[in-house]
Amino acid sequence: MIINKSKSLFEVETEVRVRFSEVDLMGVVWHGNYLKYFEDGREAFGRKHGLGYLDFFDNNVVTPLVSIECNYKKSLLYGDSAIIHTSYIDCDAAKLLFEYKILKKDTKELIVIANSTQVFLNSKGELLLTFPEFFVNWKNKMGLIKNP
Amino acid sequence: MIINKSKSLFEVETEVRVRFSEVDLMGVVWHGNYLKYFEDGREAFGRKHGLGYLDFFDNNVVTPLVSIECNYKKSLLYGDSAIIHTSYIDCDAAKLLFEYKILKKDTKELIVIANSTQVFLNSKGELLLTFPEFFVNWKNKMGLIKNP
Amino acid sequence: MIINKSKSLFEVETEVRVRFSEVDLMGVVWHGNYLKYFEDGREAFGRKHGLGYLDFFDNNVVTPLVSIECNYKKSLLYGDSAIIHTSYIDCDAAKLLFEYKILKKDTKELIVIANSTQVFLNSKGELLLTFPEFFVNWKNKMGLIKNP
Amino acid sequence: MIINKSKSLFEVETEVRVRFSEVDLMGVVWHGNYLKYFEDGREAFGRKHGLGYLDFFDNNVVTPLVSIECNYKKSLLYGDSAIIHTSYIDCDAAKLLFEYKILKKDTKELIVIANSTQVFLNSKGELLLTFPEFFVNWKNKMGLIKNP
Repeated sequence: MIINKSKSLFEVETEVRVRFSEVDLMGVVWHGNYLKYFEDGREAFGRKHGLGYLDFFDNNVVTPLVSIECNYKKSLLYGDSAIIHTSYIDCDAAKLLFEYKILKKDTKELIVIANSTQVFLNSKGELLLTFPEFFVNWKNKMGLIKNP
Repeated sequence: MIINKSKSLFEVETEVRVRFSEVDLMGVVWHGNYLKYFEDGREAFGRKHGLGYLDFFDNNVVTPLVSIECNYKKSLLYGDSAIIHTSYIDCDAAKLLFEYKILKKDTKELIVIANSTQVFLNSKGELLLTFPEFFVNWKNKMGLIKNP
Repeated sequence: MIINKSKSLFEVETEVRVRFSEVDLMGVVWHGNYLKYFEDGREAFGRKHGLGYLDFFDNNVVTPLVSIECNYKKSLLYGDSAIIHTSYIDCDAAKLLFEYKILKKDTKELIVIANSTQVFLNSKGELLLTFPEFFVNWKNKMGLIKNP
Repeated sequence: MIINKSKSLFEVETEVRVRFSEVDLMGVVWHGNYLKYFEDGREAFGRKHGLGYLDFFDNNVVTPLVSIECNYKKSLLYGDSAIIHTSYIDCDAAKLLFEYKILKKDTKELIVIANSTQVFLNSKGELLLTFPEFFVNWKNKMGLIKNP
């Protein structure tokens, strides 16, 4: 059976409004605060597809970030709303990859692009070299494992 | 035996430098960030006197804040250093009271005064109505319990 | 003319979802992060009634907080959603008073109650002892000034 | 004249203590908070060498980050102290590059490595394609411009 793997299945959009406390003295979102927005996006993806922090936790797995890379194109100001596009990027290694694009809501200007990599640790904090079982099931359900 | 209970015993001074990320678009420390400075002060007191978060934790006690009250007098700017004066206020109820004064380091101007109240919870999250044993020992050691 | 001054006119409700980055190692929202939620509430009130930070700014007025008082009743956990009830409290002195109640969305449990006081400063940073003109107009529009 | 360009001239070490409010529910520093530590390092470099935010500001230049890249190797816990090694990386393009290494203070374990790129904007927010004059002077003073 071929399950639909259209892009939209693996992408979520989340809206965020810039908080006063997130803006620096130049009047723009402090660069580190975008990492909160990426996390908002990742969590929205997780809620939609049963892959949130608590789902991992229930399966005795934690998924710490091992790398993040951000490219800042323009700035968000206090009062702006933004759309976070978060895409799950499937890969064969025991990693969890996401890509992010943040656009200013009204003008659709591209503000930031970024990507992050997470690994799987078991409850002893040991790195898993293969996907944990529940994640294989998830990939299966999402049509990401090709049956011969 | 009378143990010295001078004010200095129950007060610590901590220095903090304002971070760029702590300043808002008016160029002053965002009001909520002072709560981090109070926590710096409380932790400095804890480290000095064996009353830190981890000491409580080792005794299966947590001490969540139940109230905080801040009065903002002046502002700290980016680049400023400040001195946090944290005072332990002894009381008979099963509470933990601290008072805070933050002064601008160079001019000694008073920036904020505040106070906080914490309670004791056991490992089940139940409120303790009397001081836990290790805290009675601590009070004793600090000369805060008068022997008849 | 009597303008409706029902409670609902002076109260706004805002929903907030607890971010992973807002939770501490006890698994609950770090107490200082509630000040962001109060600000969310204050801004929602401002957007609804033309009394936001930028409205003040356009009138060459800033309104720094001079005091805040919070009472923490229960905790919010990661994954929780909460409703922030923000009420404008009218007063005759040149101050801006708000009261806040945060409830856990699903159970309606009361989490925090708080209040804040702001003052009006002009563009030179001087304290205004009477309401600025645009604010008198706003009070008038809101039915808060009784005509004899 | 040959001015000493030893590595130590272009590297500063800063100590930071992990705040309770910086730790997440897994008990480790939330990944986004390391960007505050990098900024601590950059500012320490700026204070030592006259290249801080306010120095740029006095010269009508701002230097927003355009990219950041972090690799997380291990975690810092609440109570840990860390050393931030911040290195200025000279380059010929009108950019400002820094590299960061954060080590756990007591064990010297490597926690994070990262790098950031900043650009120069003038007071109109326009990108500068060549170094501003005061920065050329700074490079000269630091022995970074070779005289033929």
